[in-house]
Amino acid sequence: KINPDRLWDTLMEMAKIGPGVAGGNNRQTLTDEDGEGRALFQSWCEAAGCTMGLDQMGNMFARREGSDPDALPVYVGSHLDTQPTGGKYDGVLGVLGGLEIIRTLNDLNITTKHPIVVTNFTNEEGTRYAPAMLSSGVFAGIHTQDWAYDRVDAEGKKFGDELKRIGWQGDEEVGARKMHAFFELHIEQGPILEAEGKDIGVVTHGQGLSWTEVTITGKDSHTGSTPMPMRKNAGLGMARVLEKVDEIAWSHKPHAVGAAGHIDVYPNSRNVIPGKVVFTVDFRSPDLSVIEDMEARLRVEAQKICDDMGLEISFEKVGGFDPVAFDEGCVTAVRNAAGRLGYSHMNLISGAGHDACWINRVAPTAMVMCPCVDGLSHNEAEEISREWAMAGTDVLMHAVVETAEI
Amino acid sequence: KINPDRLWDTLMEMAKIGPGVAGGNNRQTLTDEDGEGRALFQSWCEAAGCTMGLDQMGNMFARREGSDPDALPVYVGSHLDTQPTGGKYDGVLGVLGGLEIIRTLNDLNITTKHPIVVTNFTNEEGTRYAPAMLSSGVFAGIHTQDWAYDRVDAEGKKFGDELKRIGWQGDEEVGARKMHAFFELHIEQGPILEAEGKDIGVVTHGQGLSWTEVTITGKDSHTGSTPMPMRKNAGLGMARVLEKVDEIAWSHKPHAVGAAGHIDVYPNSRNVIPGKVVFTVDFRSPDLSVIEDMEARLRVEAQKICDDMGLEISFEKVGGFDPVAFDEGCVTAVRNAAGRLGYSHMNLISGAGHDACWINRVAPTAMVMCPCVDGLSHNEAEEISREWAMAGTDVLMHAVVETAEI
Ligand SMILES: NC(=O)NCCC(=O)O
Ligand SMILES: NC(=O)NCCC(=O)O
Repeated sequence: KINPDRLWDTLMEMAKIGPGVAGGNNRQTLTDEDGEGRALFQSWCEAAGCTMGLDQMGNMFARREGSDPDALPVYVGSHLDTQPTGGKYDGVLGVLGGLEIIRTLNDLNITTKHPIVVTNFTNEEGTRYAPAMLSSGVFAGIHTQDWAYDRVDAEGKKFGDELKRIGWQGDEEVGARKMHAFFELHIEQGPILEAEGKDIGVVTHGQGLSWTEVTITGKDSHTGSTPMPMRKNAGLGMARVLEKVDEIAWSHKPHAVGAAGHIDVYPNSRNVIPGKVVFTVDFRSPDLSVIEDMEARLRVEAQKICDDMGLEISFEKVGGFDPVAFDEGCVTAVRNAAGRLGYSHMNLISGAGHDACWINRVAPTAMVMCPCVDGLSHNEAEEISREWAMAGTDVLMHAVVETAEI
Repeated sequence: KINPDRLWDTLMEMAKIGPGVAGGNNRQTLTDEDGEGRALFQSWCEAAGCTMGLDQMGNMFARREGSDPDALPVYVGSHLDTQPTGGKYDGVLGVLGGLEIIRTLNDLNITTKHPIVVTNFTNEEGTRYAPAMLSSGVFAGIHTQDWAYDRVDAEGKKFGDELKRIGWQGDEEVGARKMHAFFELHIEQGPILEAEGKDIGVVTHGQGLSWTEVTITGKDSHTGSTPMPMRKNAGLGMARVLEKVDEIAWSHKPHAVGAAGHIDVYPNSRNVIPGKVVFTVDFRSPDLSVIEDMEARLRVEAQKICDDMGLEISFEKVGGFDPVAFDEGCVTAVRNAAGRLGYSHMNLISGAGHDACWINRVAPTAMVMCPCVDGLSHNEAEEISREWAMAGTDVLMHAVVETAEI
């Protein structure tokens, strides 16, 4: 079993970097704080006897040697970047849980046949640079590296330039590594495990996602002196589209979800009718045909709304992934580990996207989930218990060690 | 008659300061560009033989002496600040039209009995600092100066500090000046004059305004893993309130208007359900009871929407003024001037707020309006013709000179 106090202290140490405004974290990708967090993680890995690899997307790979020089490594990890108002565990638990495995194996003097590599993937969150899971996506061959380098943040800064600026662009070719398997521990970010009173979620599937960036163009004009019939109010058009997004998601009960988290209004002045609004619609479902249906209906319905209002509308897909079925062997390893250790557990479909969803394309992959309080995540108040963190990391270790063989 | 080419060249010279991105201007109040515009205006006034007064709100007063040392001055002016994506004429025509009167009187060697003072009021637009017409409001005793100094912009910078920073805080007590009369020339910012084919709007009334800042609070959470029934989506709440704002405004046809130009969403991340939205509702009508009805219905209906969705909502009135009836004598002076000069004209209710609306509380006041293309304003594409500018300034001069007496 892992050392829960050491794990917890390590989590709390990392949370000091890029503190939020309400007890959580703002350690967004490729900021100075991201660089600081990486340096701390590297120092811990090196102290635990690992050697650090770094690829051209800034993905970090801390390797603990195995006894068989020809065996492919078992990978374990997640991401250290956070939302602008994010929690202390989303992603971080998966990386530092991986480190805790190394430390525990060191304590117990256990050498596995396969090396174990703890991974920190760059820009999982996707807030500063869409899409989410950008660098695991390049690793899995979903995106090209050039395309990823050209992503821009809200200030127009390019991903490639910012990666260089913080000093974490490596030389290693992205995706050149071959994996024996990949395991990711993550907090659930939803309410099911807590409601069902289970310690462990055995993640069999991940739901798919579609991000559509919608731009509605009307005409900036004076809020006072422009008569109602002459207005081309892009803000009102957006309001009507948002209502439709909600209606579309509800129409696919019980699983589909839909909302817009990102909304920018131009010129954003109290006495100017919005001439332009840009917002991103996030639709998800475990069923690909449902996602496709929601996407298609959004385009048709939003176009109709805007046509009726004399507004222009355009759509750009800025992110997405298909629903995922994880590897049966790896999923079984997770389930067996939970059973062996006596933790209560259940099958789960991940509501969020994870690096594991992309890595599943190139290696046998599974995920372990632990509960979080009230299912709350992407919020500074995100919280988990020490016991939940311990159970998740125990199960992760046993699944990894079984797969890496002693 | 005034010199239309000189007036036009002066307008174009001013438009070089704080250029926009699409042919208009971004010369927002208390920016460095505002400071530059002020310095240019002062140099022109001094070259025309005026002396410049400056009060503690940064209001500028360029005085041309009259023949009677005891006569109160006739004031004429508007504002030089612009919207973030504003036009070249909104406000500017009223100030530089005043300057053109002085230059023309100089050319003709005419001395009026009453002095004439050309005024530039600080922060008319209200984008950077709500409310609009802030400094004419302090002048008229509507707001205290301390309260005005404490207004903050989106970056938390105080009005008082920024006024000092740009070097345009004067010593003169605000509102100490007494006015014989005040005249403001302004572009219509609406479509009526152009549609009716009239050169001049004789502004008899101004409609009233109410700005209500609405804050809706839900709960930030993950867009993927938060089930639909558990969401507290402040963005969706806003969408429903915006629809209601539109419905309320339409219910008071034909004059009332309503919209939200300012909308901020938090944390504004694609995969976070908005936990907070702040937006400002702008309602206007020439009828005070209609404004009061719209305000009251907004509060009731928006509260109901949010109660149904499990959202919190709060309201703060951040700006407003009652409908205005301008001074009969001054209005008649404008109408007579238009008639004498042979310009086609009609009575008009101003759809926008103007410094004249506040000054009307402390001095006999009237406004002259000229058409603008397609009624478009608060847009960089705002346009007027040289002929419209000339007609408006001619009428302004004749009304001013008649009131200032020769
Ligand atoms: N786990 C997580 O929050 N990932 C970000 C990508 C997503 O929005 O699902
Ligand atoms: N004229 C003008 O645009 N003034 C700004 C105040 C308002 O919104 O009416």
